[in-house]
Formats: sequence, structure tokens, C-alpha cells
Amino acid sequence: MDDYPLSLTAVVERAERFHSGKDVVSRRPDGSIARTTLGACARRSRRLATALAELGVGDGDRVATLLWNQAEHLELYFAVPAMGAVVHTLNPRLHADELAFIVGDAQDRVIVVDESLLDAFEGFRGAHRFEHVVVVAHGESAPEGMLDYEALIDGAESMEWPVLDEGRAGAMCYTSGTTGRPKGVVYSHRALVLHSLTAALPDALGVSTQDTLLPVVPMFHANAWGLPYAAALLGARLVLPGSKLDPVSVLDLIADEKVTMTAGVPTVWMAMLDALDSQPQRWDLRHLDRLIVGGAAVPRSLLEGYDRHGLTVVQAWGMTETAPLGTVSRLPSDLDESEKDDQYAFRARQGIAMPFVDIRARSEDDGFIEWDDLAMGELEVRGPWVAAGYHNGKGADSFTDDGWFRTGDIVRIDHRGCIRICDRSKDLVKSGGEWISSVDLENHLMAHPSVAEAAVIAVPDPRWGERPLAVVVLRDGMAADPEPLREHLSTEFARWQLPERFEFVSAIPRTATGKFKKLTLREQFATADGL
Amino acid sequence: MDDYPLSLTAVVERAERFHSGKDVVSRRPDGSIARTTLGACARRSRRLATALAELGVGDGDRVATLLWNQAEHLELYFAVPAMGAVVHTLNPRLHADELAFIVGDAQDRVIVVDESLLDAFEGFRGAHRFEHVVVVAHGESAPEGMLDYEALIDGAESMEWPVLDEGRAGAMCYTSGTTGRPKGVVYSHRALVLHSLTAALPDALGVSTQDTLLPVVPMFHANAWGLPYAAALLGARLVLPGSKLDPVSVLDLIADEKVTMTAGVPTVWMAMLDALDSQPQRWDLRHLDRLIVGGAAVPRSLLEGYDRHGLTVVQAWGMTETAPLGTVSRLPSDLDESEKDDQYAFRARQGIAMPFVDIRARSEDDGFIEWDDLAMGELEVRGPWVAAGYHNGKGADSFTDDGWFRTGDIVRIDHRGCIRICDRSKDLVKSGGEWISSVDLENHLMAHPSVAEAAVIAVPDPRWGERPLAVVVLRDGMAADPEPLREHLSTEFARWQLPERFEFVSAIPRTATGKFKKLTLREQFATADGL
Repeated sequence: MDDYPLSLTAVVERAERFHSGKDVVSRRPDGSIARTTLGACARRSRRLATALAELGVGDGDRVATLLWNQAEHLELYFAVPAMGAVVHTLNPRLHADELAFIVGDAQDRVIVVDESLLDAFEGFRGAHRFEHVVVVAHGESAPEGMLDYEALIDGAESMEWPVLDEGRAGAMCYTSGTTGRPKGVVYSHRALVLHSLTAALPDALGVSTQDTLLPVVPMFHANAWGLPYAAALLGARLVLPGSKLDPVSVLDLIADEKVTMTAGVPTVWMAMLDALDSQPQRWDLRHLDRLIVGGAAVPRSLLEGYDRHGLTVVQAWGMTETAPLGTVSRLPSDLDESEKDDQYAFRARQGIAMPFVDIRARSEDDGFIEWDDLAMGELEVRGPWVAAGYHNGKGADSFTDDGWFRTGDIVRIDHRGCIRICDRSKDLVKSGGEWISSVDLENHLMAHPSVAEAAVIAVPDPRWGERPLAVVVLRDGMAADPEPLREHLSTEFARWQLPERFEFVSAIPRTATGKFKKLTLREQFATADGL
Repeated sequence: MDDYPLSLTAVVERAERFHSGKDVVSRRPDGSIARTTLGACARRSRRLATALAELGVGDGDRVATLLWNQAEHLELYFAVPAMGAVVHTLNPRLHADELAFIVGDAQDRVIVVDESLLDAFEGFRGAHRFEHVVVVAHGESAPEGMLDYEALIDGAESMEWPVLDEGRAGAMCYTSGTTGRPKGVVYSHRALVLHSLTAALPDALGVSTQDTLLPVVPMFHANAWGLPYAAALLGARLVLPGSKLDPVSVLDLIADEKVTMTAGVPTVWMAMLDALDSQPQRWDLRHLDRLIVGGAAVPRSLLEGYDRHGLTVVQAWGMTETAPLGTVSRLPSDLDESEKDDQYAFRARQGIAMPFVDIRARSEDDGFIEWDDLAMGELEVRGPWVAAGYHNGKGADSFTDDGWFRTGDIVRIDHRGCIRICDRSKDLVKSGGEWISSVDLENHLMAHPSVAEAAVIAVPDPRWGERPLAVVVLRDGMAADPEPLREHLSTEFARWQLPERFEFVSAIPRTATGKFKKLTLREQFATADGL
């Protein structure tokens, strides 16, 4: 009973024994489609593990990956934890300096690189001595001094998986780090197993053997929200889109592969909605049941937009430190018959904590806020897949003395326990002693027909301390006039909450994970006027 | 992360914080309906726990329950484990001698009895010194010398739940014991939490906040298949049918309370199908999505019968020792488009192991059978909620040296890992060195229009060792003629597999949990003829 370990080995073995024939579909960088199965990936992972062990990878050693969403990445998700080592996913969109820091901090011994990412690899290769570099070469030969992934697997015997303690580290990912150096989050086997299991619940992502999952969210980003392991555990088909994530490529794949569920950040779905709106008949999306959206707040206009096409957007909230799933916004049964407006108001929230995720929000006086949807406080979380510390003991101030993680997100919580993110603590607009939610302003601005994107930042103000400033990307052909936008906002916001300044730009800079770079905007605009 | 315990406290607190307003509906012995909520039950359980502690219940002590499916039982499911004690559910349908043995073996310190079960309690009360007897008196006054349940709660403060280690015992149940004395199975908090969580997966029972669950399976029977804790964890409505389980009472409750999922043994659903067939328009069952059936093999005729009414029967297999869910029979996606016959053939199997339940079947030569659906062997299981021993170290021969539980069920396993129970090892018909599946014969007999129920047993035979004998209950007005039945069987079975003897009876004796009493049948018929 209790000595049965919750290790990823059980997940990988389940894929091999019970879901062997389920498709794993990868789109290659050249656009071609490669097909394999969960069973083949699991069997190959046994040989890959032997090969890695022969290269010197031992218990607890880190194996880095620089790969897209592709079958080889799944094989590494299987092989590395199951052999007792730690799979460390690298984000190729980070700056080379950051990657250099990260691979050194993690002390990665081996790295597996997709051929299409060799240029990115060259950017930080010199900063750290990898003992071996393995290349997924897609039939080409591996460059001089590097090992060929397929040759490694071809030459190795199958490994009998060792019995692993569930508390052992299985995976590692660095936070994108808006302030300071990136910090490593290490996930235990137990955390990853419980995270995937809970993610599959009907009120969370609802993963079943009937599903075909397309994670647009990259596998180098916080375990791809648990989808690869959930697919292996529950026997869902897996469609891995590779590097091409433009709306048409994703929609083609969803239609061709009869995808039932997909997941990614709002940016992807906003662009996809535009494509759908302009060519509503082009794609047969009848199998698509839900789009999971997370990583940034979801404007109501996005929910409404997909509803027009008969598609359901489900919002989720989480962070690298929460593995990442923390809350999911599924309409509660008592709102089934409510007015559309009330339903949207709920669905635009970030949702209710997953089972076993405990939440609370700290008020400015260091108490905790009431769940009255009025008070605002910084969200703190804990649970079986929530980090209680960073790699090497860094960033200790992100954790409370009693072991909760300080998220940095400022939230309101309603009587149901459903959170609404009002801001990042570091982005707060505090005007005359009152907080203004930049996220609410952004969402409402983005509901205006002439606005494509909007970010609101705090800028210093001699009288009020801070004032909101709106940075707006207009749709083609729209006039750069702040008045209609201010008028539009005034239907929802008090006069003192309205931005005085509107800056019209052609694009808003984003982080490697798709979030607005508010620090950059602040540097650009905070002193351009006024002070 | 890993220090977050998987304890039932998290389940009870979740019901209180996140699902407080969800209905808990109880039908009382007098037929009246009592309504409360998950939140009220959770809050009352804090006071109940204080009251029990004041009665002397300490860490690890057993508190017995002699109750139907009713809100008070749920309160005890919450209070006793969360305070650190062990809730021990008693089956009132067992013989008084057995109950006397069980309460002594468990050393129960306190017992909580429903007023309607006081007579049953008197049958074994003298055999064991309970320190306190608590009565759920439904507004009557508790008998002399017994404590009133409501008065206990009224007089107590709320308990702040202690932090519990997940390995601590939380609940206990005795096996019904077809051979030898009943044996106690003790469930850890971790086991019960993981069992309920996994039970809620879409491919298992699929429990969500949209659901209204009606467990016909008694709460004194192996955790009511995990449904009470799953409801608390996921926020489903719970409808508790009390003691009246006749088809009309259950159908009324399903229709009135808009039940979406119900669960119980085949006997219940056979009787209910007859009621539906005779009055198909009487009940509005449009909310009912699935009937979970377990505890005995499900004949195909039952699946077909419910399909006629647009209702889906899902078969599950388990035992008290497996908490109880071990396998669930959900149609795999590759059979979605198959012929009806192939679909029924699959759905009539007991299903695929739940995630984290490992299965294997031991052959007669002490190896393990192939998963070829031909070889038969005794099913062995292990997993996070599978017992690795009985209370007080009894029945050690039910466990292998490497910690697997020997189920006593003889199975075939197909290439998918889907099991088919052919027999109980002790009921096997072994004729001329060949096994005959009594369950297959029974299922096929029950598909004949004149047969209401059928049990097949092994009887000694001087030539063949054993031969099958069929005990048949006919539908009203049908003739007691074995020939058409033998002819019906011969379309599916070899000549040597057909029973020579048919005994027509008015009813087949059943155990307290609804299974055929094959031992009794064997005593009755094995020597009545022939030898």
C-alpha cells in the first residue's frame, strides 16, 4: 500500500503496457509529419537511458534539452527521470547570456539539441563544459564532436527501470526571471505524478483516453503544463507542433489530427482567433472541445470570440514554481443557468485552486484578506507540486517562514475561493494610496474594436505617487486617438482610475514566454513626459 | 512540495472551503428526505471530533459505525480520520456472530448506531465492551445508557484539525469472508486520498462538480467505492438513499434529485431494469449519465438492457482489499466505431487497471500468464491503495512474498491489459483437467429470455473430477425445461462444457454483499444426485 512509490516510472510503464498503440505525432521543422506511438517512445526511452548511463549520467545528474515539442523530447521526459537522473528543459528563446548562466547553475552534464537549434546552442556553448552534446539530426549527420541521438539509441540495450523513491528529483526548469537571475525549480517524481494526475480530473484539464492533446505550450516551459505525462498516464494521443506556432500552422494541425484539447498562452489564441474570424469556414474543428489558456490573464473578448466559433476557452493560472497548474476556471454548476454576463465575469477569473493546492492572500498589514472579492493581497500557495525553495537555496525571500510560495500576484478572492489576478506586485499602480488594477484596464482596452493589444504600466507622478499609462497597438487603419478609448474605459472605471497618457506603438515587447515586458515599457515611457 | 501530506484532512477542508453549498441529501428510514450540505457536514464533523475526543477516542482508536448511507455517516467519514482515529464501518447484514467477532478483533472503543439498526446491534452488543454507544435517534430520545448523536455535537466546540502523517490509518473494513473468519483491511490516509482522486478521473468514474452522485453501494462496504470522499474533494452533490434500495425507491430518488451517476452491485441494477422495462415512461432519467456496476460480473444482457433505455452501464472490478477500485471497463477509443458485438464483448469484461494499480496473473506452473486472452491465471494486484496485509497480521497467505495481493479471481487478460474474470479460484469447475468458466455459463444463461438469474457451481464427478451444475431462477410463467437452455448454451460452449444438471429454484441465496452463496449451493446440490 504506502510503499508503492508515486514515481514517473509508473507513468512510463503504463504508457508502454496499456497505451502502447496511441499516436505521438510530431511536426518537424521542415513541416513534415513524423508518426510514432507512446509504446515506441517508452521502449526507445529504455535504450536511450542505457546510452545516457554509458555516457556517464548517474543518479541525480542533470541532462539538458534544447528541443521543440517533438517525440524525442517526450523520450527524454521518459528516460531521464526513470533512470534516476533529472531532465532539465532549456528555453531556446532566452538570451544566450541567460542560458549560459542557467546551464552553469544547473551543472548540466549532457545536453540534447535539435539540429534546428544548433545556432542557439552555439550562443552559450562556450560558457559551460558539457561532457557530451547529443544532436537530434533528422537523418543528417551530427556535427563534428557531437553524438547522434539515433545512433545512441540504436547501439544500446533496454534498461530495466530501477525502483525509485518518490521524493527523488525528476525534472528541473528555470523561472523566466523578470527580476534578478533565473532561479531553478526542481520537481520531485511525486510532485510530477500528482500534478499530472490532478491535471487530468474532469474539472481541471479533463484528460482521457478519448483525447488528442496538442500542447502549444512548449515542453521547455514548466512541464508543458503536465500534458505529456498526463497523455502517457491516461493514454491520450499527443500532437507535438514543433517550432511553427503561427495560427494557420496550428489550426491546420488541429483540424488534420482531430485534436480535442490544446493549451497555450493568450497571445497564441488571440492570433488564432483573428485567423478564424477572417476564414471561419476554412478549418473543420468539430473535434476540438476546449482550449486551455494560461500564462497571462485572459481578456473577456477572447472568451467571447471563441464562443462565437462554438469553442470553449478554459482559463488556468500557474507558474513555473507551481509545476505549473495552480487554479482552473471552470464554470461552477450554480452558474449554469446564469446570465451570460455573470458567466463571462466568472470565466474571466483565474479560477479555483486545484485539489491539494492551498491558497491565501496576504494583505498589506501582514494579515490575510477576506474572501470577499474586494480586498486585494499577494497570493501565497502551497501543495504537493508547489516549490518550497529554489535550486541551491537561492531566492529564499520568495517563500514564507511556514513554507508557502509568494507568487507576486496581487489577487482578489471571491466567496467560492475563485481568484482574480489584479496585478503583479511589482507592476502595481498605486495612485493616491489606492491600487489600480492594470490588468483590468488592459482587458477592457482590448475589448475595444480598434485595439489589437494593450499594456498598462505605472509611471511616477509627483502628486499621486503613480499614475497608469496605456501602451496601445491599434488594429490596421484605426486612428491614434485616446479620447474614444478613455470614454470606453469610463463606462467601467472611476475617473481617477483612467490613464491620462496613451502611447500608440506598433508592437509591445514580450518576454521569451510571451508576457509583456513591463519593465522595458516603464524604462521607455516613465520619464518621456511630465517629470 | 513533498512534505505536503496526502491526508483526508485536505479533502474535508476542501469540502468546507470550496464546496460548502453543495447538497447532501439523505433519505430517512421513514421515507422522508433530509437536506444538508457538504459545508455543514464538514463543520459539524469538527464538533463531532471534539465530542469523540472527550469520550476518550485517541490517536489510532477505532470508532465503529452501524449506519446506512446517510449524512451522519458522511460526518463520521470526515471527523474520525481527520481527528487521527480510524472509522470502522460495520455491515449490518452480516450474521450477529460475525459482527461479534469483528468488533472484538478491531477492538472498537465507541460505536455509532442508527436508531433503525438498534435491533441488529443488540444481536452482538453483549460480545464486546464498547466504552460508549452513540445513537442517531432522528429526534427520538436515545435509549437508556446510550448517548444521543445530536446532543454530542450540540455540546462540543469545533476542533482545529491536527496535521497528520499520510501513512496514518484512517479507515477500516472487514472482508465479507467466504472462507474462514472475516479479516480486517486498514486503509491509510494516503491510500484513501489517492483512491478517491484516481476514481474521479474521466476514464474511471469521472466525478466533477457538475455531478450528483447516488451511491447505492453501502457506505459500510469498502468506502462506498470512494464516492463520499470523491464528492467532498471535487464538490459533487451527494444523494444518500438510506435503507430502502428497492428499484422503485431508487428510481424515484434518481429522478427527483437529478442524479447523474449511481453505483452498486448487479443485483440492484437487474431489478431496476425490470422496473424500467415494465414502466419505461414513469421516470425522467435524462440527467442520469452512467451506472457504475461492480461487486460481481455483469452479464451482457444487463448492458444491452440499459442501452435500450439510453443509459450507460460501466463495469468496475475491485475488492475490499483494493479499497475497492481496481479496474474499470471503459470502451477504448479504437472500438468507438466497432461492431456492437465487439463493443459488448469488451464492456462485459471487468476492465483495465486504474492508474498505479499493477496487475499480473499467476499460472498453475507458478509463472505468469501471457496477455493473450487465452491463458487463465489467478489475478494478483498491488498499488497505492491495495492492501499488503490484514489487520493483526492475519491471512498472510493472501499476499505474495514480494507484496502483491492474491485476489482469488481467475482471469484472462487481453493485449490491452483488460481483464476478464473467469471464476473465483475456489469455485472453479475443473473437468477432465480443463477449466470451465462458471461465470461465462452464468452470463450466457442469463441472456436467455426465460431466465431471471442463474448460478453455476462445480459438483464432484467420478469420471471428470468436477462437472458444472446450473441453478436457475425462471421468469414468471416459464417452463422448467433444461433442454432449450442447454441448446442456447451450445451455441457458445463446447459439448463437454455444458452442464448435465439444471436445478430450478425460486431464489438463489446471496451473501450480505449481494454475491451468490456458491458454498451453500454446493452443499445443497453436490450430493443430491449422482454420487
